Amino acid sequence: MRYFTAGESHGPELTAIIDGLPAGISISVEEINHELKRRQGGYGRGGRMLIETDTVEITSGIRHGKTLGSPVTLIVKNDDFKNWETVMGIEPVDDRAKKMRRLAKPRPGHADLVGGIKYEHDDLRNVLERSSARETTMRVAIAAICKQMLKELEIDVAGHVLEIGGVRGEIPETMTVAEIRDKAESSAVRCVDPKIEEAMKEKIDATKKEGNTIGGVVEVVVGGVPIGLGSYTQWDQKLDGKIAQAVVSINAFKGVEFGVGFEAARLYGSEVMDEIVWSKETGYTRTSNNLGGFEGGMTNGMPVVVRGVMKPIPTLYKPLQSVNIDTKEPYKASVERSDSSAVPAACVVAEAMVTIEIAKAMLDKFESDSFERMKQEVKRYRDYTLNY
Amino acid sequence: MRYFTAGESHGPELTAIIDGLPAGISISVEEINHELKRRQGGYGRGGRMLIETDTVEITSGIRHGKTLGSPVTLIVKNDDFKNWETVMGIEPVDDRAKKMRRLAKPRPGHADLVGGIKYEHDDLRNVLERSSARETTMRVAIAAICKQMLKELEIDVAGHVLEIGGVRGEIPETMTVAEIRDKAESSAVRCVDPKIEEAMKEKIDATKKEGNTIGGVVEVVVGGVPIGLGSYTQWDQKLDGKIAQAVVSINAFKGVEFGVGFEAARLYGSEVMDEIVWSKETGYTRTSNNLGGFEGGMTNGMPVVVRGVMKPIPTLYKPLQSVNIDTKEPYKASVERSDSSAVPAACVVAEAMVTIEIAKAMLDKFESDSFERMKQEVKRYRDYTLNY
Amino acid sequence: MRYFTAGESHGPELTAIIDGLPAGISISVEEINHELKRRQGGYGRGGRMLIETDTVEITSGIRHGKTLGSPVTLIVKNDDFKNWETVMGIEPVDDRAKKMRRLAKPRPGHADLVGGIKYEHDDLRNVLERSSARETTMRVAIAAICKQMLKELEIDVAGHVLEIGGVRGEIPETMTVAEIRDKAESSAVRCVDPKIEEAMKEKIDATKKEGNTIGGVVEVVVGGVPIGLGSYTQWDQKLDGKIAQAVVSINAFKGVEFGVGFEAARLYGSEVMDEIVWSKETGYTRTSNNLGGFEGGMTNGMPVVVRGVMKPIPTLYKPLQSVNIDTKEPYKASVERSDSSAVPAACVVAEAMVTIEIAKAMLDKFESDSFERMKQEVKRYRDYTLNY
Amino acid sequence: MRYFTAGESHGPELTAIIDGLPAGISISVEEINHELKRRQGGYGRGGRMLIETDTVEITSGIRHGKTLGSPVTLIVKNDDFKNWETVMGIEPVDDRAKKMRRLAKPRPGHADLVGGIKYEHDDLRNVLERSSARETTMRVAIAAICKQMLKELEIDVAGHVLEIGGVRGEIPETMTVAEIRDKAESSAVRCVDPKIEEAMKEKIDATKKEGNTIGGVVEVVVGGVPIGLGSYTQWDQKLDGKIAQAVVSINAFKGVEFGVGFEAARLYGSEVMDEIVWSKETGYTRTSNNLGGFEGGMTNGMPVVVRGVMKPIPTLYKPLQSVNIDTKEPYKASVERSDSSAVPAACVVAEAMVTIEIAKAMLDKFESDSFERMKQEVKRYRDYTLNY
Repeated sequence: MRYFTAGESHGPELTAIIDGLPAGISISVEEINHELKRRQGGYGRGGRMLIETDTVEITSGIRHGKTLGSPVTLIVKNDDFKNWETVMGIEPVDDRAKKMRRLAKPRPGHADLVGGIKYEHDDLRNVLERSSARETTMRVAIAAICKQMLKELEIDVAGHVLEIGGVRGEIPETMTVAEIRDKAESSAVRCVDPKIEEAMKEKIDATKKEGNTIGGVVEVVVGGVPIGLGSYTQWDQKLDGKIAQAVVSINAFKGVEFGVGFEAARLYGSEVMDEIVWSKETGYTRTSNNLGGFEGGMTNGMPVVVRGVMKPIPTLYKPLQSVNIDTKEPYKASVERSDSSAVPAACVVAEAMVTIEIAKAMLDKFESDSFERMKQEVKRYRDYTLNY
Repeated sequence: MRYFTAGESHGPELTAIIDGLPAGISISVEEINHELKRRQGGYGRGGRMLIETDTVEITSGIRHGKTLGSPVTLIVKNDDFKNWETVMGIEPVDDRAKKMRRLAKPRPGHADLVGGIKYEHDDLRNVLERSSARETTMRVAIAAICKQMLKELEIDVAGHVLEIGGVRGEIPETMTVAEIRDKAESSAVRCVDPKIEEAMKEKIDATKKEGNTIGGVVEVVVGGVPIGLGSYTQWDQKLDGKIAQAVVSINAFKGVEFGVGFEAARLYGSEVMDEIVWSKETGYTRTSNNLGGFEGGMTNGMPVVVRGVMKPIPTLYKPLQSVNIDTKEPYKASVERSDSSAVPAACVVAEAMVTIEIAKAMLDKFESDSFERMKQEVKRYRDYTLNY
Repeated sequence: MRYFTAGESHGPELTAIIDGLPAGISISVEEINHELKRRQGGYGRGGRMLIETDTVEITSGIRHGKTLGSPVTLIVKNDDFKNWETVMGIEPVDDRAKKMRRLAKPRPGHADLVGGIKYEHDDLRNVLERSSARETTMRVAIAAICKQMLKELEIDVAGHVLEIGGVRGEIPETMTVAEIRDKAESSAVRCVDPKIEEAMKEKIDATKKEGNTIGGVVEVVVGGVPIGLGSYTQWDQKLDGKIAQAVVSINAFKGVEFGVGFEAARLYGSEVMDEIVWSKETGYTRTSNNLGGFEGGMTNGMPVVVRGVMKPIPTLYKPLQSVNIDTKEPYKASVERSDSSAVPAACVVAEAMVTIEIAKAMLDKFESDSFERMKQEVKRYRDYTLNY
Repeated sequence: MRYFTAGESHGPELTAIIDGLPAGISISVEEINHELKRRQGGYGRGGRMLIETDTVEITSGIRHGKTLGSPVTLIVKNDDFKNWETVMGIEPVDDRAKKMRRLAKPRPGHADLVGGIKYEHDDLRNVLERSSARETTMRVAIAAICKQMLKELEIDVAGHVLEIGGVRGEIPETMTVAEIRDKAESSAVRCVDPKIEEAMKEKIDATKKEGNTIGGVVEVVVGGVPIGLGSYTQWDQKLDGKIAQAVVSINAFKGVEFGVGFEAARLYGSEVMDEIVWSKETGYTRTSNNLGGFEGGMTNGMPVVVRGVMKPIPTLYKPLQSVNIDTKEPYKASVERSDSSAVPAACVVAEAMVTIEIAKAMLDKFESDSFERMKQEVKRYRDYTLNY
């Protein structure tokens, strides 16, 4: 499975093409829209999120509710485009129009300046429009399709927010993936620890009042993953590595960790290892999951546990130094923004990226032309691993 | 640039092929061997490291001291192979020989069991031999070639150990890449903070005495990187994402972060952002480097700062539960190992993986058939970015 | 540069995403539409071609007439979709609707049966809709963008029909690429040899009268290609190999050849070789072009000359044996079709695929973030090759 | 499955790494050597072929006669290297040594000049050493492993020479793949038509006497290929396209065709199509094989039939014009060469490339970690296709 996303933040629409899906997966458009809605929600959002409701349009690859095996095209229209037709138009325009909403003052913490230099743009809007988090809409839409596939393969994904602005929750080891999903889903900040939820909201409110922003840590857990996705045989075949790339590729993410993660630097070997046990009913399992479901870059049958950290959205709360690219003069900008924290939404995106990578790994490993045959094969493989 | 590594830990030799290097890079074999030696060193190593000295043999792609543009083959012989000829032989053997050094007891924390299931092996040695850290030898050798290329392009890489077993050093913001390299190089634990070095060694000694193991955090810093490597335009083009994959692909690494990394979850937006300034001499720079040299997945001209965390090497210090795959009987194993910490060596490997990704990004961006032309082009591009 | 096409023949629209174009290429939508029109023309076409006029809509990656460096989305709506909304609908339908226009009788010479088996389809329409030549519309649209880029780099592509149904024209060695394009453009069968044009038309007419079909040979010529695209260093880097894949990937194409091509089996070495000469004004050139512009898988500065052969469109003129997949009963079908030859249109598609591969090779070789810098670099490289 | 070859013609050794083979394939080193010997044979060879006998050394990825799932390294030593140690040495040399066997006179019809320009070489030997047909040794070695895998999957590959220097044989449609292999194997020119064999040899002898060279057409036939390898859904997924690239990537190959190939330009649609029939025992088959085993870029269960054309090896029989790159002076060279035709050997290489692509397609389609499971899965899929 390969995919591209396309589209500018204020352009007419966002598009994605997914190539290499099996034929015969039942796809519900509603479920895709439901996922898009999840991305738009979350305590602490403001502005655009409150106005627009993203809905997907499918224009290829699905017929009568099932995938065809041919490329799937997903489109999400930008309702707001009518107000941007001149600014974002395809056709050449005169000089006056060129200057409309032109960006000559790069925002610190954004791609504006570097993108302008790299692509030799005169108007930094050319960067802003694509490097925007708006692009992640399509990642969520793609993942919504993958999720429907994984569900039929009995693989279950859930994301939740572990920490916002230094307020960190706890998650009991015994919580199942389904419980995590349910609890996160019913929390405005996607936090599974009810004691902490209020503290998070207060932190968000206080931060918002100041016009400042905060980041956080999100965790994605995947249950039901077969043993042996990914491989240790070549550096680029390790699945944890691929997931790491996918998570860090999300706008504003600055790190990723698996299982105990960075805590591993403070623990003894005797504390970190997951002991191996066996029973006829479950096959080989581990008595703990410090390694986050990975051994040698391969899934070991325990839940995959990935965490990503999102930096605070760039803010101009404290007037920040930048430079006008036309004049090279320094300037100080001071604009408040309405989102003080996008962490709950980013959690949905992180969930999406992990979902996509797990789906890709499944399609890589198993025959994936016909989903019917794939399901049978996965079942046979699960039986095999149980009886190894 | 693409590359494969190959070779089993106790096989006759390790091999790597690097495809897509420019023609005309001056390569010193000695410098490759020097890098291999760095990987083998480090306080806390034992066993094999003390016996063998890896040296590289080049069998293609270089002639009269310069790359040809054709694939480069690197070989490192395993001196020890003479003792393993039967166990690791290519040709079929009788049943008695098949049982020699056969592994039926998977070690917790290793790839043994999962690899055995995935590939349907009867002897888990078939996994152990490839999933071994021995494989990283070739990554260091490949990177040693990349490093010689990057040096001529005025890009400078240094790795150092930030934390071992909970003992964490400090690194002054003002330290240059060259200083980091020099200080790390003269420290047995690759620590640039002399006050901490002793504490690290003591921690290693105490851990060794107990037969236990510890992990740590390593940091890689890259200076002189041009503005605009990587891209925000498609998820898989972000360079920080690619580096994340490369670092997590190292054996025993459980996480990666850039700039402030996971700390970003505890900071305000106003604290994290790097202000933009400009001067005729330096072009655009930032007054701080919280984002670790990346904006929008692209290098922004500030030093790239990446950290990876290594878990403690699996140890059997505290007898650990596992299962015999023949009998399904549980067993408890208790074997001491000689390496209590491989963090300083892993630091060299992390440095290697970051080096390789930076080299790939440079070759992707610039014309890279002739190194002579590439150098001119990089120079022109640097002038251009200075005058944007 | 990477790209996907998507879309079913009778679905709502065809889509393509092109990833990796430089920023700053001037793009005319009219020129894309002009290319789409070329594909739809040609003596011997019938049916749908006469009704629909394809026009492209761009929804991303281009702003104010120039590429942004971000992915470009191209859409061509299927006007006819209004008549197919139930048959090709995305949402699940009832059993009655499922049977509408269901295909249970695979057509010999098409992908119907094999696709049905591979993807486990019950309705072979699921194959037909994607394996249709309609898909090539998007290849032509993509190539129309590449062509505008190549033109500014002084690379010139022309396709012409060499043979239809056994009627073969001659093309004088001295004809320039521009002349070929002009002559082909003014011929209803895209034939540059006016003496043969009439014979081709007559052949088409006679074949049509019989309800039969004929194939042909098309030739694509590319002038102005710099020396040294592609490489001999690894099998998959040879540019002639990549072009071969691209041409054979066109529906109904059964072969590809370069320069003297298959004739090489009948010639002596002394007849085939292109002698090397040098002058200050032209640098190194060849006195003939038997090798079709390639030496060692690399362009040698002479025009690239590629030919592809298209089989006759499958026809049911002579009732052909097939099998009903529901009943396994044999049946004989006899349906006339309106296109007796699609060779002139296929010529436009072949031209497109060669254009795309040349564009990819240019973007691979040269720095391709900013088209402005790319143009300068290509110019410098041309100067260099002239003075080698 | 991915692979690289490496090595210069007169360097110490040739190397290949194959990544992604299943675990558990039985590999015979003798069979690899047998294939290498086939490549070295053939009527009309001279020089080096008569002296050296290539033998492979395996240094990774195989243990006790079976693949491990880890990368396989293959090495073929160049016996002759002892005479080339200075000329081809890795280490820098003095100016006198640099001039030894330096090539300043590019040979027409070779990569020498273009490669020199592209990579900015001063000594064209740097090109010659890699662009040599010697490289194909490793392709044959890689294919020898693939062939052993395919054999166990009941896929059978055979190559034969159809035409040499205008002398063309006939091949009865009824000949099985096994018969083709046997007959080709017992012919010095790999020709299955005994009536033609003598004429081919005479042609070769006469050509040799004149110091000239001839090319030819080779055909590769693959039996037992499952229905549905490759796909019509995206241009780069068509298997015939991939094979086309692989065949054209062979040194001196100028074209490739499938089934009726270029003859399709002279036939009517009614003559070209393969009718579909069905029986309980065989499932769906075709009554003819004009399309060479492909429909919509997918295998249709009929034998794959591919032909490639090799140009005559460049010869200097008739003194040819070239240019000295130091002085820019023209020169005429006149050297006889000992190989008048390499077509029988090239046939073995074409067979290798087709074998590799079929193997890759099998590994892409089926679960390919464990060869045991793969065999079962392929069997199940064959049963399924029989009962579709």
